[in-house]
Amino acid sequence: MTSGTRKISILGSTGSIGCNTLDIISRQPGVFEVAALASRSDWETIAKQAKLFQPAFVSIYEEDSASRVRDLLKGSGIEVLSGVDGILEAASTDKADVIVSAIVGAAGVMPTYAAVEAGKIVALANKEALVAAGKLITEEARRTGARIIPVDSEHSAVFQSLMGHDRSAVRKVILTASGGPFFGKGKDVLSKVTPEMALDHPRWKMGPKVTVDSATMMNKGLEIIEARWIFDIPAKRIEVLIHPQSIVHSMVEYLDGSVLAQMGITDMRIPIAFALSYPDRLDLALDPLDLAAVGRLDFHKPDQELFPCLALAYEALESGNGIPAVMNAANEIAVESFLSGDLPFTGIADVVRTVMDDPPDFDDQTLSGILRGDQLARTAARRVIDLHGEN
Amino acid sequence: MTSGTRKISILGSTGSIGCNTLDIISRQPGVFEVAALASRSDWETIAKQAKLFQPAFVSIYEEDSASRVRDLLKGSGIEVLSGVDGILEAASTDKADVIVSAIVGAAGVMPTYAAVEAGKIVALANKEALVAAGKLITEEARRTGARIIPVDSEHSAVFQSLMGHDRSAVRKVILTASGGPFFGKGKDVLSKVTPEMALDHPRWKMGPKVTVDSATMMNKGLEIIEARWIFDIPAKRIEVLIHPQSIVHSMVEYLDGSVLAQMGITDMRIPIAFALSYPDRLDLALDPLDLAAVGRLDFHKPDQELFPCLALAYEALESGNGIPAVMNAANEIAVESFLSGDLPFTGIADVVRTVMDDPPDFDDQTLSGILRGDQLARTAARRVIDLHGEN
Repeated sequence: MTSGTRKISILGSTGSIGCNTLDIISRQPGVFEVAALASRSDWETIAKQAKLFQPAFVSIYEEDSASRVRDLLKGSGIEVLSGVDGILEAASTDKADVIVSAIVGAAGVMPTYAAVEAGKIVALANKEALVAAGKLITEEARRTGARIIPVDSEHSAVFQSLMGHDRSAVRKVILTASGGPFFGKGKDVLSKVTPEMALDHPRWKMGPKVTVDSATMMNKGLEIIEARWIFDIPAKRIEVLIHPQSIVHSMVEYLDGSVLAQMGITDMRIPIAFALSYPDRLDLALDPLDLAAVGRLDFHKPDQELFPCLALAYEALESGNGIPAVMNAANEIAVESFLSGDLPFTGIADVVRTVMDDPPDFDDQTLSGILRGDQLARTAARRVIDLHGEN
Repeated sequence: MTSGTRKISILGSTGSIGCNTLDIISRQPGVFEVAALASRSDWETIAKQAKLFQPAFVSIYEEDSASRVRDLLKGSGIEVLSGVDGILEAASTDKADVIVSAIVGAAGVMPTYAAVEAGKIVALANKEALVAAGKLITEEARRTGARIIPVDSEHSAVFQSLMGHDRSAVRKVILTASGGPFFGKGKDVLSKVTPEMALDHPRWKMGPKVTVDSATMMNKGLEIIEARWIFDIPAKRIEVLIHPQSIVHSMVEYLDGSVLAQMGITDMRIPIAFALSYPDRLDLALDPLDLAAVGRLDFHKPDQELFPCLALAYEALESGNGIPAVMNAANEIAVESFLSGDLPFTGIADVVRTVMDDPPDFDDQTLSGILRGDQLARTAARRVIDLHGEN
């Protein structure tokens, strides 16, 4: 590291990204300090983490859980905050240089904005912030000088493939996609996909929502929208390429025909650590990528007809500021319905399409307006699914 | 381009790299100016080039050819130089910002050194300069602030994969090799390889010497030595990976497990243009790389037993400053002998090994000493081949 100990605040410390972040920090003694930890309700885990990493404070959203943590941390000197104020304090505290934004879902939007407003280095894992409010957040980052460093492996790869290179010469950003478990399958198979089948992802171990998004390729759709904002590049210059081995994490094509790519094993600690230590790199002591052992890398064009969620994402970006938030919200509800057995797999895209075609009316120029739009779109999606169930 | 018109001097303007360089320049009006052109003896071509590109001067090594060019350029206002002084003037002229060092063979060493001594941006295509005198040349570049930018597609890829990244975090440089036409073949096949078979390279169209070097993998051996000096990285951290499609031009592995790679179609204009316009990139209007059309990329470990030239290169680097020059000179003579039918294919490595095992004695701390060593090693190689022929 070039500049002394880096102080980290982790929003969503008890989730998968949060735990991986702490794993990296614990293996790099003297490199990082934990300034703050924040979680929604998992009081047991956050209390353990606090004892181990000794942050200045922890923040638990739910009041009951916060009380339990207060009891457990009595005498430790670690302050315990709660509610929205607590999360926003963890997102903007003077005690931290880097804010890891890893709260899942729409709940992560406000804290991400707060971190950007405070001019922090933001290690961004929350998807919704940029999908729903990419314009507002990136404008605010330009104003405050906040630096958004993506934690997603695809965006981290693009970020790394842009570093040090002539930005005016970028022709395309190429996001790779594993293709999910149903790549290459026909319509007949897709119409009969069960939750169990969708949750069996070939490469990455992730939560159920993301795994289903990967199977529908909505995950890639959301990433297109994120990329549009993180890298300030129009959607028509963002492409998706199926790459089943998930070794090439993504690429950037330049005007001269050069394609820069970042590759690696599929371990989330690589992009997380890079966001924490940027622009330096840490020795993570992971198994190196052995391309000779992998043997071959395959690439295919995605089938946008069979996987309509990609087209929906391009459409949402074209339609204007508010529609990606609508798409994302409708998709979340549709995926929930699919997982609970109330919607067929191919119904997910149908629901999203229906909600997008008749979007709720809301102010897409403010954060609160967008969050209200998110709620309205969820209600609309539930209505569409209920109607669908009745048919 | 960030800084006005860039003035280019091309050493070896009538060869393949030289002609490609002029092709790029002619397609980018207003971006470059040709300051000087230099060639050994091809008076017809260089006179045509001079009329088209209007350099301040041209330089032809051979006196007879120079006179012819003087006649052809009478009244043009273009000065015509000759001999060693002429080449050295083209290598160090105040009229040029970038020197394209594309003279083939040992004749390119002195001019490359002169360009580095003059503190130029050196677009380096000549292999011998760094293979024979890498230590002297890179030390001189550090002293003068000369910037060596490789034109070789592999080294250009490594250079691009290092740009903007934490140099202290480099774990490995991974050079890719097509494997040549005999990748995967057994000893029985290799022992019967004819010049015709060796000259049929699957990917790149190159001169006969380089094509044979590619078949023996000595080409990759020379590149390992070049990489050691351009990137100031010990040989043991330079690896070679067979990649038959030649799409991934080379890679850099970092401590965190990230592998950065540069890919592209196999067109020498990409790395040449990059060296000319660095750090900017030009729109070369080439076909883009279509990975979905390529379909698959394969990677294999090289077989160092079947292709002993790789091991010879590592050994030469370990043995000390002078031995790579010996290896390179012996290899040139052995390849000539193979091409003229006087040495079997597998004899090339044997001749190099024999000369390296009993190297000539010379001063490897000066450029003239190294060039003398080059001559002595050629003589030694001829002797070894003659003895072999008599057996």
